[in-house]
Amino acid sequence: MMDISEVNSLSLEDFLEIFGNVVEKCPFVPAAVWSARPFATLADMEANIAELIDSLPTAGKAGILRCHPDLAGRDLQSGTLTVESEQEQAAAGLRSLEPTDATSLRRLNLQYKERFGYPFVICARLNDRAAILRQLAERLANELQRELPLAIEEVKKICCLRLRRIVASDSKL
Amino acid sequence: MMDISEVNSLSLEDFLEIFGNVVEKCPFVPAAVWSARPFATLADMEANIAELIDSLPTAGKAGILRCHPDLAGRDLQSGTLTVESEQEQAAAGLRSLEPTDATSLRRLNLQYKERFGYPFVICARLNDRAAILRQLAERLANELQRELPLAIEEVKKICCLRLRRIVASDSKL
Repeated sequence: MMDISEVNSLSLEDFLEIFGNVVEKCPFVPAAVWSARPFATLADMEANIAELIDSLPTAGKAGILRCHPDLAGRDLQSGTLTVESEQEQAAAGLRSLEPTDATSLRRLNLQYKERFGYPFVICARLNDRAAILRQLAERLANELQRELPLAIEEVKKICCLRLRRIVASDSKL
Repeated sequence: MMDISEVNSLSLEDFLEIFGNVVEKCPFVPAAVWSARPFATLADMEANIAELIDSLPTAGKAGILRCHPDLAGRDLQSGTLTVESEQEQAAAGLRSLEPTDATSLRRLNLQYKERFGYPFVICARLNDRAAILRQLAERLANELQRELPLAIEEVKKICCLRLRRIVASDSKL
């Protein structure tokens, strides 16, 4: 684990090597907040990332969501998930689904993607298999304009948990 | 080579597998314009990408620039460039620099990065070694506010040339 002063002393190259995937396949996000260093705390770094994401146009936010893999989808089967996603999907029990759950998830994922135009994103580390299936079914009923910000909040939660596996939390706020 | 109707019929997963790196390490850019399909022409697809990039806040644009490797830098030496960048840097003769040119490029790159906070980005396929060195020296003198849009225009040129190696040009405009 690094502390925030170590984070602040990294070169751009090292910073991106370490934080490049805190938002799935979107290294431009940590790259964008690199110029906001020095970060006072980890919370300050997280706030800068959240602010950057919020400042994107709707199409850019949808673009971020589309960089996420389907839960228990093609990438999990073929072993082409990022290291972070693989660990998160495994932690939520998505690698060992009962056939009925796997079928439900596949069907709901497809419906979700058809309705919203991006894959269902949820912070898998904060949810188990049952909670993921329940929330997927619930969120499918949302209005388009209401769902995008909800999905983006999940991106931020995933990002914060990925950050906290790299940088030690602090209470210097 | 694909034609634009083949592009329009791709699934999101296939679209991102094929176009994910048209903007260096920024799959969120093609992912963002995916919802603008069907594209009338390749030029229409390019225009959508340019518009998305222009719509980003300044920090997001700087983030895109920071996802680009140094020309003739660490990634070229260590073989960790993306396939596209590797081909482009090779085409511009950056893999076989004279020692004096290599030293100049390294020094100017460093100055540029210190001044602007992101690496020097130029469409290497439209420039040879000498032109790259000359433009790097020239752009170093730019005001900060003037340089960012110039660098972003280079990102768009790189993107268009990458697209034209995948999708057949058309004259249906």
